[in-house]
Amino acid sequence: MRAFALPIACSVLGALLVAAAPRPLEELRGFSARAARDERDWEAKLQAIPSSDSMRSYMRRLSARPHHVGSPYDKANAEWLLAQFKEWGWQAQIETFDVLFPTPRERAVELVTPTRFVAKLQEPSVPGDPTSGQQSEQLPTYNAYSADGDVTGPLVYVNYGVPADYEQLERLGVSVKGAIVIARYGGSWRGIKPKVAAEHGAVGCLIYSDPRDDGYRQGDVYPQGPWRPRDGVQRGSVADMPRYPGDPLTPGVGATPGAKRLPLAEAQTITKIPVLPISYGDAQPLLAAVRGPMAPDAWRGALPLTYRIGPGPAKVHLRVKSDWSTKPLYDVIARLPGASAADQWIMRGNHHDAWVNGAQDPISGLVPLLEEARALGQLARQGWKPRRTIIYAAWDGEEPGLLGSTEWVETHGDELRQHGAVYINSDVNSRGYLLAAGSHALQRLVNDVARDIVDPETKLSVWKRAQLKQIADTDSAERRREIRQATDLRIDALGSGSDYTPFLQHAGIATLDLRYGGEGGGGIYHSIYDDFRWFTTFDDTSFVYGRALAQTVGTAVLRLANAEVLPLEFGGLAETVGRYAGELKQLLKNSQEQARERNREIEEGLFTATADPREPLVAPQPEEVPPHLDFAPLDNAVDALTKSAQRYEQAFARAQGDSGKPLARPEAQALNALLIQSERTLTSADGLPRRPWFRHQLYAPGFYTGYGVKTIPGVREAIEERNWKEADDQIGRVAQTLTAEAALLDRATAAADALAR
Amino acid sequence: MRAFALPIACSVLGALLVAAAPRPLEELRGFSARAARDERDWEAKLQAIPSSDSMRSYMRRLSARPHHVGSPYDKANAEWLLAQFKEWGWQAQIETFDVLFPTPRERAVELVTPTRFVAKLQEPSVPGDPTSGQQSEQLPTYNAYSADGDVTGPLVYVNYGVPADYEQLERLGVSVKGAIVIARYGGSWRGIKPKVAAEHGAVGCLIYSDPRDDGYRQGDVYPQGPWRPRDGVQRGSVADMPRYPGDPLTPGVGATPGAKRLPLAEAQTITKIPVLPISYGDAQPLLAAVRGPMAPDAWRGALPLTYRIGPGPAKVHLRVKSDWSTKPLYDVIARLPGASAADQWIMRGNHHDAWVNGAQDPISGLVPLLEEARALGQLARQGWKPRRTIIYAAWDGEEPGLLGSTEWVETHGDELRQHGAVYINSDVNSRGYLLAAGSHALQRLVNDVARDIVDPETKLSVWKRAQLKQIADTDSAERRREIRQATDLRIDALGSGSDYTPFLQHAGIATLDLRYGGEGGGGIYHSIYDDFRWFTTFDDTSFVYGRALAQTVGTAVLRLANAEVLPLEFGGLAETVGRYAGELKQLLKNSQEQARERNREIEEGLFTATADPREPLVAPQPEEVPPHLDFAPLDNAVDALTKSAQRYEQAFARAQGDSGKPLARPEAQALNALLIQSERTLTSADGLPRRPWFRHQLYAPGFYTGYGVKTIPGVREAIEERNWKEADDQIGRVAQTLTAEAALLDRATAAADALAR
Repeated sequence: MRAFALPIACSVLGALLVAAAPRPLEELRGFSARAARDERDWEAKLQAIPSSDSMRSYMRRLSARPHHVGSPYDKANAEWLLAQFKEWGWQAQIETFDVLFPTPRERAVELVTPTRFVAKLQEPSVPGDPTSGQQSEQLPTYNAYSADGDVTGPLVYVNYGVPADYEQLERLGVSVKGAIVIARYGGSWRGIKPKVAAEHGAVGCLIYSDPRDDGYRQGDVYPQGPWRPRDGVQRGSVADMPRYPGDPLTPGVGATPGAKRLPLAEAQTITKIPVLPISYGDAQPLLAAVRGPMAPDAWRGALPLTYRIGPGPAKVHLRVKSDWSTKPLYDVIARLPGASAADQWIMRGNHHDAWVNGAQDPISGLVPLLEEARALGQLARQGWKPRRTIIYAAWDGEEPGLLGSTEWVETHGDELRQHGAVYINSDVNSRGYLLAAGSHALQRLVNDVARDIVDPETKLSVWKRAQLKQIADTDSAERRREIRQATDLRIDALGSGSDYTPFLQHAGIATLDLRYGGEGGGGIYHSIYDDFRWFTTFDDTSFVYGRALAQTVGTAVLRLANAEVLPLEFGGLAETVGRYAGELKQLLKNSQEQARERNREIEEGLFTATADPREPLVAPQPEEVPPHLDFAPLDNAVDALTKSAQRYEQAFARAQGDSGKPLARPEAQALNALLIQSERTLTSADGLPRRPWFRHQLYAPGFYTGYGVKTIPGVREAIEERNWKEADDQIGRVAQTLTAEAALLDRATAAADALAR
Repeated sequence: MRAFALPIACSVLGALLVAAAPRPLEELRGFSARAARDERDWEAKLQAIPSSDSMRSYMRRLSARPHHVGSPYDKANAEWLLAQFKEWGWQAQIETFDVLFPTPRERAVELVTPTRFVAKLQEPSVPGDPTSGQQSEQLPTYNAYSADGDVTGPLVYVNYGVPADYEQLERLGVSVKGAIVIARYGGSWRGIKPKVAAEHGAVGCLIYSDPRDDGYRQGDVYPQGPWRPRDGVQRGSVADMPRYPGDPLTPGVGATPGAKRLPLAEAQTITKIPVLPISYGDAQPLLAAVRGPMAPDAWRGALPLTYRIGPGPAKVHLRVKSDWSTKPLYDVIARLPGASAADQWIMRGNHHDAWVNGAQDPISGLVPLLEEARALGQLARQGWKPRRTIIYAAWDGEEPGLLGSTEWVETHGDELRQHGAVYINSDVNSRGYLLAAGSHALQRLVNDVARDIVDPETKLSVWKRAQLKQIADTDSAERRREIRQATDLRIDALGSGSDYTPFLQHAGIATLDLRYGGEGGGGIYHSIYDDFRWFTTFDDTSFVYGRALAQTVGTAVLRLANAEVLPLEFGGLAETVGRYAGELKQLLKNSQEQARERNREIEEGLFTATADPREPLVAPQPEEVPPHLDFAPLDNAVDALTKSAQRYEQAFARAQGDSGKPLARPEAQALNALLIQSERTLTSADGLPRRPWFRHQLYAPGFYTGYGVKTIPGVREAIEERNWKEADDQIGRVAQTLTAEAALLDRATAAADALAR
């Protein structure tokens, strides 16, 4: 589901870990010397197996026809996947759920004033691209979970349609009350756009792909090049997923046959106003008819017109009506049972459903997963037995709203709380750099694995390539010094946009999202052109990065499944949380300084003095300067966590350092049992304010960014929303959580000491 | 000549002066108490005179027909101006020069491969715009002083065509050898583009106006709005003016009948390759036919196409042939002789020639000058007598290369060295903020005048409005604090682009360039659409900023002409030079750090590791780390200047403080005689390396920027060009200059002390 082009903030392997941390001495974290030797052998075998040809043939099969939720080919793919897992020796089954998934019945966009123009709302087929003509099976261009509606109003161009854009509109004296807004894709997850528009009184919302961000300005358009053609449209969900993902009718529980369902009218995640996505071909006549103030420089796109804001005189009529019936989901779940610690689950998933043919999204990420599964099956036939249980999943219904993964996690909540050790997700895979994000207790593991995988283009380790990319991408000499000196590269925190969300943010399972990217580029995302021809012409055409992903994740899964002690590390976590706490203090300080400065500027008449009377601006109102907040509880908790993480690391080193004995003695059980609870301890049962489904205290998708992560979200969003009482409460809440984590680590230290004795 | 849209670097009234300087006590700097009272009366009378209606009628007359150098209406305008000055009581005359001024004979641009397209090279007339149809008198679209040539070659898109763009081309593996480059306007003065292209081996150069910078992306296009229409073309000179301005055949001497002239082949300022400017309508098919690497993000314009670099496959044929005959220049020079210090000249100028009708450029700046002249004439009739001689000039031939002003300055060099006290220039005037730049010894004067002029839109003083604009435009809290605390706002240094250049940079006369701007905006610069209809529809339509400019400059002229002691101030100069010295050290340090870092990145393989094999980049070569330079002589000289400036200021305060006596006693003569030499002392007789015409040691147009100023240019450009020996020499040279200035100030201090006694 996540856009292929990652936002800049989502950097390559994030930044660096503890600058001073020496490379640990152990051969392989969590393995005694002998076990490490065996592990290395199995890893070498595994890495040799993934085949580009196999991935190509899987992709050809899986993307041969449109396979969205509810389509015949979606079910056919699930059954084919099931057969593959079984053939490779896995215990596999399909789990089915029934979910609300609206599909289009009526769609109309037309300019009614000053001239008439009827939007095409149709992506034409492309000669030479065989699947682009499968029109009878293609989902029309639409945004799933748009409210039904039939509205007419003046058009207002709102840039990306994020809250900051509405602040700018206020300065420009433009209101969207009663208007239909047109926002360009980008700048946030798409579902934020109608949500914020409705909060400001708009009655309808159009979302279009501007060629500046996704079209000819970025490169040649399809079929000559990989970029979005004039009539290409980005479908996608607009459900309010930062509130809760999954079936809108069953928040918190699995959408099983007997589940209690909300009436449709009570579903909180359906938009308040009708929404439709359109192409830049359809958008151009609409935008050309808008007058009113000039759009600020940064708002202007690459269409050959003068971007203005409105409202009107362009008046638009928008009609959206959906079939609101439920549709079946087919999650394919495959297991390799653990030999000696079957009650600890190492999980791995990627979705299989697409908006249309979905060769890139999601099949490019699914086919490496399949090669991992085939490779693990092959190792099992050669006598390898995983210590822990491995569960591979191909999720359905990710595109509409992480449906398959969310309903599965909600259905299996109790088991997951007991057994869930790690979940590794992927989604779209492409060419370039290892993009790693997730739980910081897994930062060391990712770095260790990345050092062992060879980049197919440069033959450097993917770790080294990522490190050099980070150095190249920063302008700060200080940052370059840090990156060069650090043992580990930082991994990014996870927001949302793929199936990791229910695992990490609802169930509290240590999670990673791994994929390659950064050298791709293209504009077929969620269009009929995301197909086999496109992918094999323009993206990872020889599947060498598909192979690299299978090697990377396969190695990580093998290592996690086989380790005598789970290779979690908490120094990186403590350092990260300390950094986040620093960011919060800086956020408040900046907010105070900005308020003080703005108030002063209002007082000295700056806004009226610098406004061009021909382009009038509304001066902002004075605002209260944010109060000081007591961050001491948070700082104390970070200190405690840092110390506990150090103590655990020392105890762990003593335990592993005794290389004569296997680590996998009965004492290790107690330690592992504590370790798999370490991520759960970072959650809170009552979740975040106003969205209890999101339980993780460190990572959440932003309520007003959608995909973009907010770290320590309870505190951060309270500060951003200027809710000082809540910020204060949440500081206490997060401090408690971190203190509990420190206490858990202290128990783990005791268990490691027992193991060392 | 200078583009209306000022580059961002050329900020509103620059920045701030000495943060700690207390507001001086004197009522009016350089006036005794009683003289100040008289002066205030005359200033009030003067400020009441300028009339918007008069300016409108002057503009209608002066822009009624095309009036470029050599055209009948150019001469007619000069004669009309002469008559006006005479009518207003001035001693006026026309001074004539004969200069090389090429005009087009043949012009052709055509795409010959892969398809054929013949560029129109013609600006269409606009219904409802009466002067746009005067085609028989309009100069065709061309670049004056382009070499003749008939060339065919593959096309390469070079962005703005500045040196940094060629570094980028090198990284991309693209050579322009044998190619025709197409550069967009902007990023430098236009003449830099063919100069740098030729240095890199190109055989021809096209310059076009991209709608991103100058067209529909900025606003509605003419005639609906003020911006450049599809077929609008920016004419302009491409003579190598950073080498020397004026007639290419008479460097350093006036182009008088008997002057020795270079043969055409030896003129150094004519381009090496043919150049033509084209519209974006003509550029679009050319750019659409270019393939090769994608243009970097910042290079991409707003045409609806994928910007690529080439070379080719687009192949272009370019033909340019000019009539190289000489043409007459008509400088209109008017005098009001001084009563008691006639040997000290206060000068004021604006050009009268245009590329076509030139309502904005230059008539918008010339009509306030005329109202100043009328007002001063009126005061003289009421009994006012200027202490010093006032000289008003309307220059011809500014557009092709500051011809009229340069030849006049070169002709009158000896007199100017003796008598030249101050020159105040203006050019295009528009709506908005006071834009002030020039000699820092005049910074205090500009600030004092700006405090006395009322902004017509906000009714604040133009000083206050400029201060608030500076606060609004900076993101730095530190800078805001400085601006708020400072007595004086900083003025910018002057590069080139208008007639101040020969006065300041060749003759060493304290110079100001004053105009209003920042709220205008439009794209008719140097096109047939820069006419009366355009200006009175879209720009300073009621001439209120014309009136403000007349009041501002009129007041400055009056104050300079009447002051008993010239109101120069040197604390601001010393502070400015100290800041420049700091910038030079930082420049060297950055250059060292960058070289070290790049060498390290080459060594660690960063460039190969981060290059996408599908978009290959050429790794840079290791380079020598710049050596440390001895800045001590410069620092010592700055210290000496700072101390001398302080001592002078104290002595001056004592002299002026004795308000009982008039300042205008015989002792003041000696002081004034020293003061008018203070700017001359900042020049060096042998000028800058490789361009001896430019003598000022603090300010020069950049050899590779054109209009953009380089401060302490000898040292700065040596560092930029990595010429360490020269940098070292130039540090010594500048230190000598500053030391001489300090010595002159010490003599002025003694003279002021004599006056105080």
